[in-house]
Amino acid sequence: MVSKNELKLLRSLRQKKYRREHQLFIVEGKKSVAEVLKSDFQVKNVYATASWISKNESVFSFPLTEISVADAERVSALQTSPEIFALVEMKENKAIELSSKCLLLEDIKDAGNLGTLIRTADWFGIQSIVCSEQTVELYNPKTIQATMGSFTRVQLFYTDLNEFIKQLPEDYVVYGTFLEGKAIQNVDFASKSAVLIGNESNGISSSLSVCVDEKIYIPTKATHKIDSLNVAVASAIVCYELTKK
Amino acid sequence: MVSKNELKLLRSLRQKKYRREHQLFIVEGKKSVAEVLKSDFQVKNVYATASWISKNESVFSFPLTEISVADAERVSALQTSPEIFALVEMKENKAIELSSKCLLLEDIKDAGNLGTLIRTADWFGIQSIVCSEQTVELYNPKTIQATMGSFTRVQLFYTDLNEFIKQLPEDYVVYGTFLEGKAIQNVDFASKSAVLIGNESNGISSSLSVCVDEKIYIPTKATHKIDSLNVAVASAIVCYELTKK
Repeated sequence: MVSKNELKLLRSLRQKKYRREHQLFIVEGKKSVAEVLKSDFQVKNVYATASWISKNESVFSFPLTEISVADAERVSALQTSPEIFALVEMKENKAIELSSKCLLLEDIKDAGNLGTLIRTADWFGIQSIVCSEQTVELYNPKTIQATMGSFTRVQLFYTDLNEFIKQLPEDYVVYGTFLEGKAIQNVDFASKSAVLIGNESNGISSSLSVCVDEKIYIPTKATHKIDSLNVAVASAIVCYELTKK
Repeated sequence: MVSKNELKLLRSLRQKKYRREHQLFIVEGKKSVAEVLKSDFQVKNVYATASWISKNESVFSFPLTEISVADAERVSALQTSPEIFALVEMKENKAIELSSKCLLLEDIKDAGNLGTLIRTADWFGIQSIVCSEQTVELYNPKTIQATMGSFTRVQLFYTDLNEFIKQLPEDYVVYGTFLEGKAIQNVDFASKSAVLIGNESNGISSSLSVCVDEKIYIPTKATHKIDSLNVAVASAIVCYELTKK
């Protein structure tokens, strides 16, 4: 069973400052736990309720620690509390091995958007994402949940985007998504492409827009004025076009 | 100011059964309120906090009812409570005027996914969406929020999808998104196209898959096995390809 102190630690990880302090985070749900166990993340412990264990005894080779339903609910940061979750060590990337197609995210604020974006990048084989320091944290429970396990495969790196773009190898072309520019279906992406995606409310800041080599946009077919697409949706169309050939 | 009874009504609208009973729903936030005031929805009242009114007095011609911050928080179903929201009459579509490109949704369960899907359809000029009866309700506050006002322009119709597809005019081709079929970039969509999108966990049911004329899929570029894309993301790529020409 789970001790009081252990439970206190697990609960504290709903908050970013304790995740940072302990360098630990929680992965909720069977599918995501399966993915993290397959990955090179260090899993410290896997907790499951008695009913889950009785139904799924031999699913994982990793030893399971039984937790009460009430305690599992106390740990969960999500709306529906999980029957199984893992306690995992953070990996902070000190550098990034840049894939030939990559995304640069400026100040994405919504955890669900970031998670969905990571899941989409994984689907399209985009292995690296560089985030501004103000982008929401990867280890936020809602981000981890929305990735559906893809956080184990896509590499994220948080840094000063201005500095990062300045130091990009010369053979990378930097694209940026705007409400104007070249229609995305007509863009012939370079073999090494980095696509900058802006914040949900403000788009790409002026200080970063000057670093963009080519402005691109997703044409609307609406007959009336619409402000924008959801950022995870716009990024999905970018990933699709970027990796089509 | 807002009476106790009025507040009780407003609060009750966080629940589907009271929305149905009163045929009323809440639209939160400045942008969405602006959109609903421009639309043919009947707005019964617009509530705003004193500080919002002092900053935005002349933004809307519609008369504003002042509400305290505490009461506004009690009404809101969202994480951040709004400074302005509208009380609006539901419109139940008894029939649908089908646009030449349309979506058919089978049992979409997540309110945020449905809202994002509506916003995306609007961007790509897709004016009608037919939903199975088990699809999450349009008037759920999270759906309305995620549409960013697009619910005023895209027509939704809830019905038995099996029956609906049987009665579709003969010149419509029914496509369905699966994990196999023709790669979407190679699909030459008919001038009248209806694309069926399946449930988040189970995809398209077997009873509906037999109604599909052509199976399509979004190819993955991942070198490992991934289960699926988020449904709002997959639908976005469908909307993009469907309306590209």
